[in-house]
Amino acid sequence: MSERVKEILSWYGADSPGTLANLARLLNHGRLGGTGKLVILPVDQGFEHGPARSFAGNPAAYDPRYHFGLAIEAGCNAYAAPLGFIEAGAREFAGEIPLILKTNDADSLLEEPDPDQATTASVRDALRLGCCAVGFTIYPGSAHQYRMFERARAIAEEAKRYGLVMVIWAYPRGSGLSEAGETAIDVIAYAAQIAAQLGAHIIKVKLPTAHVEKAAARKVYDAENIPIATQAERVRHVVQSAFDGRRIVIFSGGSAIFDDAALFDEFRAIHDGGGFGSIIGRNSFQRPRAEALNMLRTAMDIHAGKAVS
Amino acid sequence: MSERVKEILSWYGADSPGTLANLARLLNHGRLGGTGKLVILPVDQGFEHGPARSFAGNPAAYDPRYHFGLAIEAGCNAYAAPLGFIEAGAREFAGEIPLILKTNDADSLLEEPDPDQATTASVRDALRLGCCAVGFTIYPGSAHQYRMFERARAIAEEAKRYGLVMVIWAYPRGSGLSEAGETAIDVIAYAAQIAAQLGAHIIKVKLPTAHVEKAAARKVYDAENIPIATQAERVRHVVQSAFDGRRIVIFSGGSAIFDDAALFDEFRAIHDGGGFGSIIGRNSFQRPRAEALNMLRTAMDIHAGKAVS
Amino acid sequence: MSERVKEILSWYGADSPGTLANLARLLNHGRLGGTGKLVILPVDQGFEHGPARSFAGNPAAYDPRYHFGLAIEAGCNAYAAPLGFIEAGAREFAGEIPLILKTNDADSLLEEPDPDQATTASVRDALRLGCCAVGFTIYPGSAHQYRMFERARAIAEEAKRYGLVMVIWAYPRGSGLSEAGETAIDVIAYAAQIAAQLGAHIIKVKLPTAHVEKAAARKVYDAENIPIATQAERVRHVVQSAFDGRRIVIFSGGSAIFDDAALFDEFRAIHDGGGFGSIIGRNSFQRPRAEALNMLRTAMDIHAGKAVS
Amino acid sequence: MSERVKEILSWYGADSPGTLANLARLLNHGRLGGTGKLVILPVDQGFEHGPARSFAGNPAAYDPRYHFGLAIEAGCNAYAAPLGFIEAGAREFAGEIPLILKTNDADSLLEEPDPDQATTASVRDALRLGCCAVGFTIYPGSAHQYRMFERARAIAEEAKRYGLVMVIWAYPRGSGLSEAGETAIDVIAYAAQIAAQLGAHIIKVKLPTAHVEKAAARKVYDAENIPIATQAERVRHVVQSAFDGRRIVIFSGGSAIFDDAALFDEFRAIHDGGGFGSIIGRNSFQRPRAEALNMLRTAMDIHAGKAVS
Amino acid sequence: MSERVKEILSWYGADSPGTLANLARLLNHGRLGGTGKLVILPVDQGFEHGPARSFAGNPAAYDPRYHFGLAIEAGCNAYAAPLGFIEAGAREFAGEIPLILKTNDADSLLEEPDPDQATTASVRDALRLGCCAVGFTIYPGSAHQYRMFERARAIAEEAKRYGLVMVIWAYPRGSGLSEAGETAIDVIAYAAQIAAQLGAHIIKVKLPTAHVEKAAARKVYDAENIPIATQAERVRHVVQSAFDGRRIVIFSGGSAIFDDAALFDEFRAIHDGGGFGSIIGRNSFQRPRAEALNMLRTAMDIHAGKAVS
Repeated sequence: MSERVKEILSWYGADSPGTLANLARLLNHGRLGGTGKLVILPVDQGFEHGPARSFAGNPAAYDPRYHFGLAIEAGCNAYAAPLGFIEAGAREFAGEIPLILKTNDADSLLEEPDPDQATTASVRDALRLGCCAVGFTIYPGSAHQYRMFERARAIAEEAKRYGLVMVIWAYPRGSGLSEAGETAIDVIAYAAQIAAQLGAHIIKVKLPTAHVEKAAARKVYDAENIPIATQAERVRHVVQSAFDGRRIVIFSGGSAIFDDAALFDEFRAIHDGGGFGSIIGRNSFQRPRAEALNMLRTAMDIHAGKAVS
Repeated sequence: MSERVKEILSWYGADSPGTLANLARLLNHGRLGGTGKLVILPVDQGFEHGPARSFAGNPAAYDPRYHFGLAIEAGCNAYAAPLGFIEAGAREFAGEIPLILKTNDADSLLEEPDPDQATTASVRDALRLGCCAVGFTIYPGSAHQYRMFERARAIAEEAKRYGLVMVIWAYPRGSGLSEAGETAIDVIAYAAQIAAQLGAHIIKVKLPTAHVEKAAARKVYDAENIPIATQAERVRHVVQSAFDGRRIVIFSGGSAIFDDAALFDEFRAIHDGGGFGSIIGRNSFQRPRAEALNMLRTAMDIHAGKAVS
Repeated sequence: MSERVKEILSWYGADSPGTLANLARLLNHGRLGGTGKLVILPVDQGFEHGPARSFAGNPAAYDPRYHFGLAIEAGCNAYAAPLGFIEAGAREFAGEIPLILKTNDADSLLEEPDPDQATTASVRDALRLGCCAVGFTIYPGSAHQYRMFERARAIAEEAKRYGLVMVIWAYPRGSGLSEAGETAIDVIAYAAQIAAQLGAHIIKVKLPTAHVEKAAARKVYDAENIPIATQAERVRHVVQSAFDGRRIVIFSGGSAIFDDAALFDEFRAIHDGGGFGSIIGRNSFQRPRAEALNMLRTAMDIHAGKAVS
Repeated sequence: MSERVKEILSWYGADSPGTLANLARLLNHGRLGGTGKLVILPVDQGFEHGPARSFAGNPAAYDPRYHFGLAIEAGCNAYAAPLGFIEAGAREFAGEIPLILKTNDADSLLEEPDPDQATTASVRDALRLGCCAVGFTIYPGSAHQYRMFERARAIAEEAKRYGLVMVIWAYPRGSGLSEAGETAIDVIAYAAQIAAQLGAHIIKVKLPTAHVEKAAARKVYDAENIPIATQAERVRHVVQSAFDGRRIVIFSGGSAIFDDAALFDEFRAIHDGGGFGSIIGRNSFQRPRAEALNMLRTAMDIHAGKAVS
Repeated sequence: MSERVKEILSWYGADSPGTLANLARLLNHGRLGGTGKLVILPVDQGFEHGPARSFAGNPAAYDPRYHFGLAIEAGCNAYAAPLGFIEAGAREFAGEIPLILKTNDADSLLEEPDPDQATTASVRDALRLGCCAVGFTIYPGSAHQYRMFERARAIAEEAKRYGLVMVIWAYPRGSGLSEAGETAIDVIAYAAQIAAQLGAHIIKVKLPTAHVEKAAARKVYDAENIPIATQAERVRHVVQSAFDGRRIVIFSGGSAIFDDAALFDEFRAIHDGGGFGSIIGRNSFQRPRAEALNMLRTAMDIHAGKAVS
């Protein structure tokens, strides 16, 4: 067990050894094992965007086993997906990679200004499927946000009782926010804080922009000269906002980028800002497998601090 | 056990010895231990206002351990915070200071005329984290008030069954009240009464102004010549409104004040009016630690009735 | 056990001996014990109207123990109050007077055309506090009426399982009714019927006026020449409407009256009309204690059929 | 509420107001109401000895209603019986006398050196039947004693949660004791201590003899010169053994005595020794009703300290 | 929080912060607070030996309040007793001293070669009574040992879930052991190991003799030259046997000693051998209060390492 992983585990003093052991499994698996960094493959787009939008560009990805195989071969720390996708490969790939069961999901058949999600899996499901962690999405800023926080809290309490890790996807959106506000630096930092206060062990947010959404926040960012000009600075601020770096925060881009140079710049900013890694969905499974493997390995090298040209 | 603490415990005849023992822990801890007075450090602003607005002015405060340390070194009676902040220090500081677990919280990403909060922690959480008490916020005057009262009641019943103390933050707001009405003397006194009727052991309200919000109330205040001209008189009236002083009522200021003379005047008014103490959040952790310790100790001296120049 | 009390108990054939025993306790306690008549002291005005409007006129009444003492000394059959007030005296006055725990309450901070209440106590609370009965308020005519009926029914079912008595406060109001309609004879009689149909053992309504609110009702009242001209006739009609007098119906005045002659006339009308007694709140605890004791005893004499000049 | 009853209630500080209210009901009912003394009518002999042995001598006593009537007319504090007997009169006599539901019973069809009992009723039964208390028999000294203690404890915990009183019949017997040992002073005092440690509110033991059963005890009785020569001294020692008199201890004779002078001497000894009263079964219901009423009233007079020739 | 207490808490890494907080309360209370040493007053002799044998020598001790007062005035770390004794003082002394609720007990009315105990209290009882810990006795070597281990484990699991501390009284006895074997060094060391393996936080054993009971053990003690000649050496061996000193082990003498010099020698041996303190029952409450206070304070001084002549 590396010193860094031991240090990270020490931040979770209220958790049981069972939860720490599952957290250690996530941190010690794959090519980044032991570095304290994470690259996770998430595939919930089938539910969120529909199958054709998600998989038609790389039809092999219709098969749930494809994603298990990709995550394993790439050396990801974990694979995250909704109930059906996990069930479809859990036996065949049992024990090959840490699994994160998404326990709520949304579709895109009904547009609503204030989005919500459906609870789609349970902590019991996670145990019977051999998952290390459960995932839950909250939408801070939505009119449904408090009911979402309450469901997240209840699942977190149960997950901890059974020794699992709680991952919160904190995606600000809803009638309280402008579209730009969804990735504004003050809002993303706030979302990370909320997820940490709800008891998340791992927090997943989008990379923030330099926009500041709320007037009350802007006053403070200006008065205190909080550095938010570069992506790395913004990552650093978000990590600080999650209990001064004592919670694991990982980042995703906002949308599919097929310009790998830009993508690698994002990973470098995460690394330079002290972020704990990336969660890379569409950019991986929506391209051919060989390319995806290359990209994911490069991502891991960047997060591991290796020179990548 | 001082006579005053024994007297206070005698007011809670319907409670179990377990709840009395935890109430005694709160009353006997810290520099005010045994006086029957309380100064509590609450830090829920990370959730309520966001991390930068809360902590950027004193960046050490991003770290959850900072607040445990501040409350312990200052000699506060207790430290109150949401789940994540309590979890982040509960093992390291186990047994060093009584803890109050906030069990609901709101954020400020979505403005609503009728505010609500999310339930964010449970009585079971409080027990596993070693807390003496649970806290819950109600918004009398909001369209959501009755559902909030119901959740408060349910948590209070469970807390009492397990020997914990129930603290209610009673903050009037919502479409039933003008902005001035949120701190009007009739409204604050009413909020204290509601919290007491819901079964709170400790009630936290804001310092009231001399404004009287409701016409029906104004008639009585005028007819009975209820003295509300000075802050001390208003404190006395609020304390009387909480079962004739037989429930513990503590006060907070409405906003951050960095004019300590004004702050100390507030503490003096609370003391002179028979209030049981203060809950001091932003005014403590948003300034440098040494200044905060000085301020908190002066606050305790004033509440203890010592001459403070 | 008097013949009259035995007769009353015989009306409740679906109830357990436990519920009958508690009903007998209510009927056999105090100066009216054994007569089949009841005078109950209710004090929920602190919650419903706020502390100053309720208690400033007689400041001793801020102390919850005052009301226990008043009810006991006056010889009332029972004392009814919300959770906090009952908790504040339940140990000190254990066994001295039958207690009715109000299990829902409203405040007056937020005016709504369709009023509702919050559930503020449980059947378990009633048992641990030594109460004989639980009380619940319904607002027939409000848009919330069906949810209120459902909550009343659920509490009644649980109360009966544990041998408690169910008291329903049936107060018509809300967008379905004019202001005059809230005390109209057809509406009050209807509210008594609804409470009886929901399974109440004791029904509390306001004294009705001769106004008939609903056109459909008016046709019948006219066609059948239902006598409603005098207060006693209206009382008789309401009692008849509650299962032909086979449910206990007690009455309150609508607002504080300090003209005792008028008040005593109301009690006489209740007695003459076959009502089972009075529930007297503001008219008792808002006047000096000695006067209140005199008034309550006179009320009991009138209900007992004694000549009172 | 008499000072003496208030003093007795003050000994039960760990109990809820609900339990105190039911204890007050027992202490305030009947001819001894308010004196702090109790005379209770128990009729479990139908179960324990069979119907003919129990009732043939006074055939009216075959009818369960006979015993309710006897207890009520005599002015007993309470009537105690097994489930069936309570069920058979609970509605007809609802509210007329406090009831104690025996929750375990034994028969005499199978003689065993180590006796046991069957659990025959529940706390829920007690609530639906309107009982103030549950009763449970333990046999200290039997090979079954620990399982009996465990059942007693579980019922006591549930009874307290619902506001009922716990009465333990502590009858030493079994292979650990000689026949004389069943009423030996050291053994009876020990049984009272065990019942108190198990959480009983009221303890029922047999009048002890001057015999000392256990060698280890005899050494102490001799060394400390514990006065046990007279019946009053032995009662005093048993009461002292039940938490220095801070638990209610009542006594029964060992067998039916139809020599009333001897019986009254026993009552006098209980009174002189500071006992809290008597539980009188066979000596009351196995004689003609008028004689029983006379005897019971004399018993009450003696316990009340009245001169009885 | 002293470094030593922090070090001790660090041994209990599988426990929740709630359990650590209660363990800290035990370690930080009284005259030995902060030293890592404990002197506990246990009073279960009323149940175990009967009231006269326990209390007749110092009759003030019949009153349960006596023991609370003695433990508080002496400055003990905690007071341990069965349900009834704790209930009888829990309200009056709420919050004045950490309480340990004994959850099983035996009496001495029935001699059995294979002793057992009855479960006499629950974890829920401990919470409602404000206890920091539950205690449970096991008899390794008895034919009932495995059922006792199972009950101990179940209570430990529940206690840990609710943040309480588990104390195991490990008293070897039963048909597997000779009388000398009950305190043999191999057997006491083995009992401490069993208690630690069952998940105890604090283990209470008797001071061992130099006798080695089991032949298989004797071979090892001889072969390895384990030093067991002096009492201090034996204490050191027992402490080593409880996870190399990483579980708290406290000691009691085998029987009442009124030769204080001998008693103090025992305390010195415990201190010299690295024991964590003493549990002193009969030697404290069976002598006059002033003498008991002197003795207990001397015991604490010895355990604190102070020179005591």
